[in-house]
Amino acid sequence: MSISRLTPIFDEFKLPSFKPNIKDSFMTTYNFFAGPAILPSKVIRQSSEALLNFENMGLSIMEISHRSPQFMSVMKEAQSHVKELLALDDDYSVLFLTGGASTQFYMSALNYLPERGNASYIDTGAWSSKAIKEAAAIGKVQVIASSKDQNYSYIPVDYAIPSDTQYVHFTSNNTIYGTQFHQLPPTEAPLICDMSSDIFSKPINMMPYGMIYAGAQKNMGPAGVTLVVLNKNKFQKAERHIPTMLDYDTHIAKGSMFNTPPVLPIYVSMLTMRWIIAQGGLEAMEVRNSKKAQLLYDAIDNSRLFNAIVNKKDRSQMNVCFGIEDTALESSFLKACTSQRCIGIKGHRSVGGFRASIYNAMKMEGVEKLVDILSKFDREHGG
Amino acid sequence: MSISRLTPIFDEFKLPSFKPNIKDSFMTTYNFFAGPAILPSKVIRQSSEALLNFENMGLSIMEISHRSPQFMSVMKEAQSHVKELLALDDDYSVLFLTGGASTQFYMSALNYLPERGNASYIDTGAWSSKAIKEAAAIGKVQVIASSKDQNYSYIPVDYAIPSDTQYVHFTSNNTIYGTQFHQLPPTEAPLICDMSSDIFSKPINMMPYGMIYAGAQKNMGPAGVTLVVLNKNKFQKAERHIPTMLDYDTHIAKGSMFNTPPVLPIYVSMLTMRWIIAQGGLEAMEVRNSKKAQLLYDAIDNSRLFNAIVNKKDRSQMNVCFGIEDTALESSFLKACTSQRCIGIKGHRSVGGFRASIYNAMKMEGVEKLVDILSKFDREHGG
Repeated sequence: MSISRLTPIFDEFKLPSFKPNIKDSFMTTYNFFAGPAILPSKVIRQSSEALLNFENMGLSIMEISHRSPQFMSVMKEAQSHVKELLALDDDYSVLFLTGGASTQFYMSALNYLPERGNASYIDTGAWSSKAIKEAAAIGKVQVIASSKDQNYSYIPVDYAIPSDTQYVHFTSNNTIYGTQFHQLPPTEAPLICDMSSDIFSKPINMMPYGMIYAGAQKNMGPAGVTLVVLNKNKFQKAERHIPTMLDYDTHIAKGSMFNTPPVLPIYVSMLTMRWIIAQGGLEAMEVRNSKKAQLLYDAIDNSRLFNAIVNKKDRSQMNVCFGIEDTALESSFLKACTSQRCIGIKGHRSVGGFRASIYNAMKMEGVEKLVDILSKFDREHGG
Repeated sequence: MSISRLTPIFDEFKLPSFKPNIKDSFMTTYNFFAGPAILPSKVIRQSSEALLNFENMGLSIMEISHRSPQFMSVMKEAQSHVKELLALDDDYSVLFLTGGASTQFYMSALNYLPERGNASYIDTGAWSSKAIKEAAAIGKVQVIASSKDQNYSYIPVDYAIPSDTQYVHFTSNNTIYGTQFHQLPPTEAPLICDMSSDIFSKPINMMPYGMIYAGAQKNMGPAGVTLVVLNKNKFQKAERHIPTMLDYDTHIAKGSMFNTPPVLPIYVSMLTMRWIIAQGGLEAMEVRNSKKAQLLYDAIDNSRLFNAIVNKKDRSQMNVCFGIEDTALESSFLKACTSQRCIGIKGHRSVGGFRASIYNAMKMEGVEKLVDILSKFDREHGG
């Protein structure tokens, strides 16, 4: 038996040899990674050009001052796209910060969980657990519901929310497990939501939300910037000492320019939002995303070999998690995908199986390709 | 009198019309901005290509997983370049974080200023003042020296350092005022240094340092990543609760991959360090930077109109600050610079006059060009 048979770990990053064609090279690989994830090809092309010569300044977007009118205008456009996409009124502030959702876990509680207040958290997986951990070190945190008992394969229902809670925190889409909230927690308290993996994938009514936050690297742009949208009037500000960089008021007062912002990630996010609007906005994204998800879940449900991991009603439109009954076939299926340049299909280690992330920028043709591979594989091995 | 004469505010971002030549467009404008600042043209070209098709994957560097071997190898190379450039032994950890130096002001004290300890700070301008403010909210901070009395135009000498100090914090180069430490504070305690604006501009003996940190956007790369190099054994860790993302140990344990790192800023920083090494390393940078600074300071000192703002012995090799006696000529000089595509020369509002930032990537020909403009202007108006 050869060594490779003893170590059946499949390396999905080893792609078949690729002859680059600069003109449309980035269109030839179908990228199902959970994040950093696929971006629209137009955004990639424009970003690449702005790296060489931005706005005909003879300078790269990377080497211009963030105080230049050229970048100020990028920042302004990015903020106005968020306002348009979420139909925000002036009570909401739009911030572009750094540190990812992981920093927001702590920062949101530091600002809005007062000494004698308490906050409610819904635990739907790794990311909400981390949010709970950071907040619990600051104040009184109640985990009002959890789906941990079944490895987070469903979204909890029928839980009580304390009427005196300062806010209710949840994770709208759970990348690792492929679950998604399709109904909001029933409460009058302001919601705080980690929307990292489904922001801008469908229309959002912001009224119930006091704050949402999202790392950009799934539906909004590249890694390196975190969107925070908040209505500070909906919260009681904690009276503890808050360091300057962790105080939302610092960034609200300075329009996300208290210190040098991540220029390039903000620029690419702005282009991505411009692209979303040009495609027809969040309504159009929802139609497209539903069609893609439906096609893929149907293929899985109709197959003999594959099975979806999540309850039908809690399935994510962004991350389609599925398994294969005969796990010995796992690596053959991954190989079949990779040989057709469909990559990033391997499931998270805590769930196993497969995961296809089909964010906004994934075209229908990419999902059709994956469905073809899956159906062909099912016919060949599921007989 | 026309309106433009009544409003002599000069807009240095309004460049003369520019016919782009993609091949070398980014070489035609001389960029003297303080930051985000000039990058080597080779780095810009390579980054632009990686945005289209990274490592022949058919994917943009922006859309690959940070856990892919391709990006892991970028991260590893970036870390190894820092280790090589600073000749680090294994006691030092190399971290790529976010949040800028402004986050480090707080984070360094949070980790290494114990409840009953005290720390010494040297105040040489806006950035050290901010560091002092953040640390003072955490523990006992002594400002052992300050040059505030003369608008930070010099580097303090002859100050006492308490023998029981946990560390001594200073800002090695002061972008706004154009001063730079050319001798280290005399102490046995570990130094913590904000090197944002002179990192990698000359050889650094890391022995006296417990920690250095630097926003990338001057000498190391684009905005969006912060380098932290630290030897945790040199500090007493504070026993307070430290949130996960603000704990250096989190990032040391996970090799800067606790959460999604800023992929693109790290990639461009890696390319920039690769470029520095190819140019001959920090020794070569120092030779080049000294020559450039000498040429420019000499031209200023030898002029009739212009004067350098800073004491000769404290002058920065990175940010050359100078004024003009007849301030009515300020805007004419800026116009002369901009018409020759030398931009970013306007001084910071708290100092006034002019500032030419001549970081690693500024070529000698750029400084020669500026010196030509300055000398011609001096001949024409200083008669």
